[in-house]
Amino acid sequence: MIDAQAKQQFLKIVGTENYDDSSTGRLVYSYDATPQFQSMPDAVISPRNKEEIASIVKVCNEFKIPIVPRGSGTNLCAGTCPTEGGVVLLFKHFNKILEIDEENLTITVQPGVITQEVTNAVEAKGLFYPPDPGSMKISTIGGNINENSGGLRGLKYGVTRDYVMGLEVVLANGEIIKTGGKLAKDVAGYDLTRLFVGSEGTLGIITEATLKLIPMPETKETILALYHDLEAAAKTVSKIIASKIIPITLEFLDQPTLEAVEAFSQIGLPTDAKAILLIEQDGPAEIVKQDIERIIEICKDENAVSVKSAQSEEEADALRTARRAALSALARLKPTTILEDATVPRSEIAKMVKAIEEIAKKYQLRICTFGHAGDGNLHPTCLTDVRDREEIERVEKAFEEIFETAIELGGTITGEHGVGVMKAPYLEMKLGAAGIAAMQAIKTGLDPNNIMNPGKMFAKDSRKRVVVSK
Amino acid sequence: MIDAQAKQQFLKIVGTENYDDSSTGRLVYSYDATPQFQSMPDAVISPRNKEEIASIVKVCNEFKIPIVPRGSGTNLCAGTCPTEGGVVLLFKHFNKILEIDEENLTITVQPGVITQEVTNAVEAKGLFYPPDPGSMKISTIGGNINENSGGLRGLKYGVTRDYVMGLEVVLANGEIIKTGGKLAKDVAGYDLTRLFVGSEGTLGIITEATLKLIPMPETKETILALYHDLEAAAKTVSKIIASKIIPITLEFLDQPTLEAVEAFSQIGLPTDAKAILLIEQDGPAEIVKQDIERIIEICKDENAVSVKSAQSEEEADALRTARRAALSALARLKPTTILEDATVPRSEIAKMVKAIEEIAKKYQLRICTFGHAGDGNLHPTCLTDVRDREEIERVEKAFEEIFETAIELGGTITGEHGVGVMKAPYLEMKLGAAGIAAMQAIKTGLDPNNIMNPGKMFAKDSRKRVVVSK
Repeated sequence: MIDAQAKQQFLKIVGTENYDDSSTGRLVYSYDATPQFQSMPDAVISPRNKEEIASIVKVCNEFKIPIVPRGSGTNLCAGTCPTEGGVVLLFKHFNKILEIDEENLTITVQPGVITQEVTNAVEAKGLFYPPDPGSMKISTIGGNINENSGGLRGLKYGVTRDYVMGLEVVLANGEIIKTGGKLAKDVAGYDLTRLFVGSEGTLGIITEATLKLIPMPETKETILALYHDLEAAAKTVSKIIASKIIPITLEFLDQPTLEAVEAFSQIGLPTDAKAILLIEQDGPAEIVKQDIERIIEICKDENAVSVKSAQSEEEADALRTARRAALSALARLKPTTILEDATVPRSEIAKMVKAIEEIAKKYQLRICTFGHAGDGNLHPTCLTDVRDREEIERVEKAFEEIFETAIELGGTITGEHGVGVMKAPYLEMKLGAAGIAAMQAIKTGLDPNNIMNPGKMFAKDSRKRVVVSK
Repeated sequence: MIDAQAKQQFLKIVGTENYDDSSTGRLVYSYDATPQFQSMPDAVISPRNKEEIASIVKVCNEFKIPIVPRGSGTNLCAGTCPTEGGVVLLFKHFNKILEIDEENLTITVQPGVITQEVTNAVEAKGLFYPPDPGSMKISTIGGNINENSGGLRGLKYGVTRDYVMGLEVVLANGEIIKTGGKLAKDVAGYDLTRLFVGSEGTLGIITEATLKLIPMPETKETILALYHDLEAAAKTVSKIIASKIIPITLEFLDQPTLEAVEAFSQIGLPTDAKAILLIEQDGPAEIVKQDIERIIEICKDENAVSVKSAQSEEEADALRTARRAALSALARLKPTTILEDATVPRSEIAKMVKAIEEIAKKYQLRICTFGHAGDGNLHPTCLTDVRDREEIERVEKAFEEIFETAIELGGTITGEHGVGVMKAPYLEMKLGAAGIAAMQAIKTGLDPNNIMNPGKMFAKDSRKRVVVSK
């Protein structure tokens, strides 16, 4: 519970209309898109500007109250679950696009703006903001920055981090700093901008961001290649890159995912294929044409059973939408869907997919795999039921093995979802104790009272998905 | 002087052949490419592997000995001057390219490899490592990473930071960590990779790096546009970008620089132009042709007095080489050359160049300006003489005003040279006291004894270029 004095101060800062400690109000923000990490906050606050955030942070520091900044809560690592209570900070008053600068190719936004709105606003001007996380219709830019969101276009265009040029951040001490700017080059001091990107709200609260834009590619083409053999699909991916073509999208779906997607979206996907690749290229029309021709050749050389170009933008869009619906499609099948994002070097994809299949078999689990093959970023997705304690224990073990395999193959425990609470117990696998200690030194330096989204990134104990009975 | 016990330990770690505390040996490493910051180290050590570095760091921590990692010392911010004595760490035993991975498009190198060697090695395989700092024929990759070096191709391709995918780093506590990897996506923990990039050796010692490669563009074309009017050149830059073309290079030289370059390289540059733009585009042949045609049109629309395409690769190369020779050409003219790199948003270039001209006039100084116009990254270069104390004081004031103007225009005090000792007193202009404090918190967290390149980035006092007599 919030200390009465602290509550008085919060009310003074934001007004009663922006402070909610009712049980319904708190319940709404007790969970995010990640299953099994529900935890009640003590209050929900909607500050109206950065000065109010700075004041709130000072009160939180004084009373040692955790602060959890939250956009739309679409993250998949329990990054916005108020694990240790405290206040959830909402950004509904930070929903403005402040400027599109066509000369410097930047957009400056408040963190509460929906990702899709950014995309729409810049595309109307012939410009392009490439990061496209799966949840972009709902997710906020602030959330994307805090989680360093990826998406389907990462292979060619990179991730959110690559487009954040400058930030305004409220630090744990209540100071407001500006990092970077509309600058193609800036080496004045440590790269604080990129340190905050992906720091999951544990180092400061982002109140404004300047993002890089690029010219809108002239055109885009989409093809779908079907395989009777997983290996062949993986080899196609490697061969495309090795032939010096970097497609915008190189998505992979295995058969179980394909079935679920088709059942969900009914666009006539062939459910008997063992694997499909959804491949897109963008750029100047003649180059796209050349690249796509070459890609089709490679697919055929690698024994694709069928390669089909989308004949219209509608058809291409249907394919993309179907791919984007993979999670929703799978989520219908069982009460609980656990979506992971173990990532490996692109060359190791076939090995990784096979390992996932074997691990699923070993633990008798249903794991479907889809993801961004060009990035080596796979989404093994387990269809399960949290009420089945025994099965969940097997799920836990299976994912631990999946992470271990990813690390062995030179990969990482999370490519784009973040660590949050969910993957904190596994982070040491990737970074080692010394790496975690380095992160901890930075965290302690910037947030000595550990009020900024505590319980995230740094593992408190071995609690994983299995709730230990007391 | 190094404590005798510490010296014994160093000798035990690296052997007598890799330890030098002779006065000649120390003198060689008492300065770098930056004028006026000479300072003697106590010893020069050449470790043979990362374990030796870890051992050296532990000794330094015990005896509080500063460590200055040094590549070729080509930096322009006195980043490798042993300001506080201690040991200079050389990387001559770290000169191997460890792997070029054509499937994952990466190169893994030791930090002592020369930048140009990386370029040559990957180009032989049809791949491309875009960062091309002016000193790339001499500079090392380790130095580039520590300084986050830029170059002429930053506009389209970004800077060193954008190509560092993973690092091996010896921390101040002697622990060795690995960050990132051959991964297009990785959000496991704070972005330590990019925190180390550009941290100027103040946070750790880089012992290995995995760099991102891209396919080699098919072709490149070069044009030279001459202007009687500075503003027209600047407007051309803005108009090219606004017409959604991102050239690989968009370099600017003012008349005094042009004269010096022509006198130096004698390739027939017209020295009566008030400004020239060297513009290059790369990519697929047909697209380059289209872009170059459109760029030539824009140059003409903006009243270029002449626009000329390089007729052969030799001619293009002569132009590029001439541009790269700008610093050397200017350096011949007066005993001391002070090259700065104030950077502004691209849209503010004309204002910035004018302000530099006015400031030069006000302080009666000879300042030539050239630089990366597409990045807003200018190199105002003062031709002076350090022995003229009175003039150097004016130089100091002029540059302070130049930095202030850059900040006012939304720019930064350094676009690609780094802070080092030289710009430490100005860093607060860009970051504010709270920003510096945030950096300090990180620094103290990771290097509590301040042994890692001390005296860099964080201003000790107000000492600038003017040596205060005792």
